[in-house]
Formats: sequence, C-alpha cells, structure tokens
Amino acid sequence: MYTLYSMQRSGNCYKVRLALAQLEIPHALVEIDILKGETHTPDFLAKNPNGQIPLLEVEPGRYLAESNAILWYLVEGTHLAGETPLEHARVLQWMFFEQHAIVPNIGAAYFWLCLVKGGRELQQHALDDWMEEGQRSLNLLDKHFARNRFAAGANYSVADITLYSYTHLAEQCDFDLRPFAALREWHARVAAEPLHVAMDHRAAPLRVAAE
Amino acid sequence: MYTLYSMQRSGNCYKVRLALAQLEIPHALVEIDILKGETHTPDFLAKNPNGQIPLLEVEPGRYLAESNAILWYLVEGTHLAGETPLEHARVLQWMFFEQHAIVPNIGAAYFWLCLVKGGRELQQHALDDWMEEGQRSLNLLDKHFARNRFAAGANYSVADITLYSYTHLAEQCDFDLRPFAALREWHARVAAEPLHVAMDHRAAPLRVAAE
Repeated sequence: MYTLYSMQRSGNCYKVRLALAQLEIPHALVEIDILKGETHTPDFLAKNPNGQIPLLEVEPGRYLAESNAILWYLVEGTHLAGETPLEHARVLQWMFFEQHAIVPNIGAAYFWLCLVKGGRELQQHALDDWMEEGQRSLNLLDKHFARNRFAAGANYSVADITLYSYTHLAEQCDFDLRPFAALREWHARVAAEPLHVAMDHRAAPLRVAAE
Repeated sequence: MYTLYSMQRSGNCYKVRLALAQLEIPHALVEIDILKGETHTPDFLAKNPNGQIPLLEVEPGRYLAESNAILWYLVEGTHLAGETPLEHARVLQWMFFEQHAIVPNIGAAYFWLCLVKGGRELQQHALDDWMEEGQRSLNLLDKHFARNRFAAGANYSVADITLYSYTHLAEQCDFDLRPFAALREWHARVAAEPLHVAMDHRAAPLRVAAE
C-alpha cells in the first residue's frame, strides 16, 4: 500500500489526495508540518533530498517526489491520463503550465499570505509580481475554459485536478475571481465530478510524522 | 512533418531542438523573435493563446504548447522516456522540478540578463530572489549528480535534456558553477551523448516567421 507524506493545507498535496480519492486507491497518510520544519529533518531528507512534500512511498524504501510526477504515476493507464500520445501531451501541457505559471505566484501567495504568520510583510517585495503574474495566468485559464469544458478538452483529466488545486484557493490570497466566470464555472464542474473530495477532507487515518 | 516554432536563443526551445536531433525526427523550424513581439501577433495567438514558444504543429492546424509537454510527446515510447510507469514518473519528476525550480529563476535571469537590453535594471528588485533560488536548485542538482549518473538514474533520458538546457546557460547569467563539480561533470556527460547538438546548432533550414 502506498504511503503519502502530505500536509492537509498544502495545495500540492491536495492534488495527490484528490487523485487517490477519485481512483479509489488505498493509501496511508502521514501528516507532515512544513511550518514546523518536518520536511528538513535528517530522516525526511533521506527520503527526499529536496525537502518537499508531497512524497509518495511507492514501495518500501522507494520514494517519488514532485506532486505532478506522483499524479502521473497514479493516473498512467487510467481514464484520467487521456488515451493517445497527443492526449497525454495535452494533459501534461496544463500540468507543466501549472508548475511555472500557477505555483510560483498563486502557490507562493497562498503559502505566504495564508499559511505563514507575518508572511505578507516578509514577502512584500515580491507580492506585486505574484499578483500580476497570477492574474495573467487566471485570465488565460478563463479564456481557455470559455472554449473548453475541461483542461485537455472534452473530458475531465488529471490536468483539471492539477489546475484546480491552487486556482480554487486563489480568492483566499487576494486574487479576484469575479471577472472570471468561465473559470468559476469550471471550478463547479470539477467539484461536481464523481468521488470529488474537498481540500479539508480526511480520507484515511492520519499517522503522525514521528511514527 | 512537424513544424517547430522556436527561437534560437531560447533555452525552452533548445530542449525541443535537442530531442528532435537525438531522435532524428525530421522537422521544419520557424524562427520566432519574442523580443520583436512575434509571439503576440493575432496570427501566433491563434496558434497558442499563451503567446509562448516553443510551439509544435503536430499535424496541420493542431498545435502543442509547453516545452516539456512537447518533449514528452516526442519521446513517449522511446528509450528517452524510461520503460516502466515508475521510470516514466522519475523522468517527469525532474521535468516538473525544472519548471518550478529552474525556469522561474535561472530561466528568468537568462532572459532578462542575456536577452533583453537593459533587463538587469528593469528586474533589479527580483534578481536577489532569482540568484538565491537558482543557487539552491543548482546545489540540489549537484548533490543529485554526485550520486546519480543521469537525472532519472543510470540512463540518459529526456529529463537530462530538460535540466541541461538552462543549467548549462547559468554561468552566462551570473551563477557560479565552480563549486558544483558533479553538476559540471554531468554537463560533460550530457554533451558527450550521441547526436548531441549545441544550442547554436541549426539543424534544419529556417523559415521566416512571416511565411
């Protein structure tokens, strides 16, 4: 059985938990608090030298890092990955977009404004760029969802899971989604998919990090 | 035959040109100058609403964006993608890492310091963060290559193509690679792979953008 090292309030971790839920894959969760430095203990760094979560133990002692690589590993061969090589690439197109155009600004804003006490003051010099770049990405997605039911086309895929995670948190960190009707309608379509779970859902018994 | 919309001096475009060369895939190149706004013409935006290169025309009128998604499309089923689902995921792990940990800092520094005239002054407020984050990523890669011959393990893969592109340009934009012997040795291993081409290599006749 897989073990996922995850933090409940992390968007990158939520993506993986949502895919696990929708594919009904049994797993154990280990809650890791990055704010308490639990990703930088010698024990955790031995599992992932990059000191980041999510981290999936795919078999005893073998670990896979990077949320979107974990997602691909879980969905490869399922309906969430697309069927042809071109469909795979369309799904991955939006997963890569998320990593360079969503995570470094909306993901960063969420982390510093919502999770870190006093983070707004610490990151004041970077906030304007995050808001501008984040707004640009949201605008692009809004235009995309005005013409496409889901990220990679007609069908729900892991690309939707990926993009949903931080964009559905954007209003919590100062982004204004009111102008983006198509994006909000897509949010509703994603949330209406079978076996969807919300970010605060706890699907599996949590084990403590020290265990 | 594929048509690749590309700029010779772009690291994200070089990745795709290198994969095309190493897989000996026939293609036409259309040179697009982002500094002259050629990715924001109505004609180009109709092809890619995100206004970015590289862009691959996979069949007449059908386009694929995002350098790493294009790469995956080209390598799926070849020796450059790995064989098992776990190997695929290990390759993708480093391709996603590149998009959030290399491109937003080393890629950005390369663009503003090497390509845009006066870019250093325009981006002075962001430079310190780019240098710090970029250095952190280079340090992580150096440790990784001290223990691994290639990114995803023993074998050269598209993950190496991905990571090589901006890291081998890092010294041109103020990063100091001297402390990172393992990283520099891996650069040499990548450059010694069969059918490797340098960034300034022109493999196919260039067509002009307006054609």
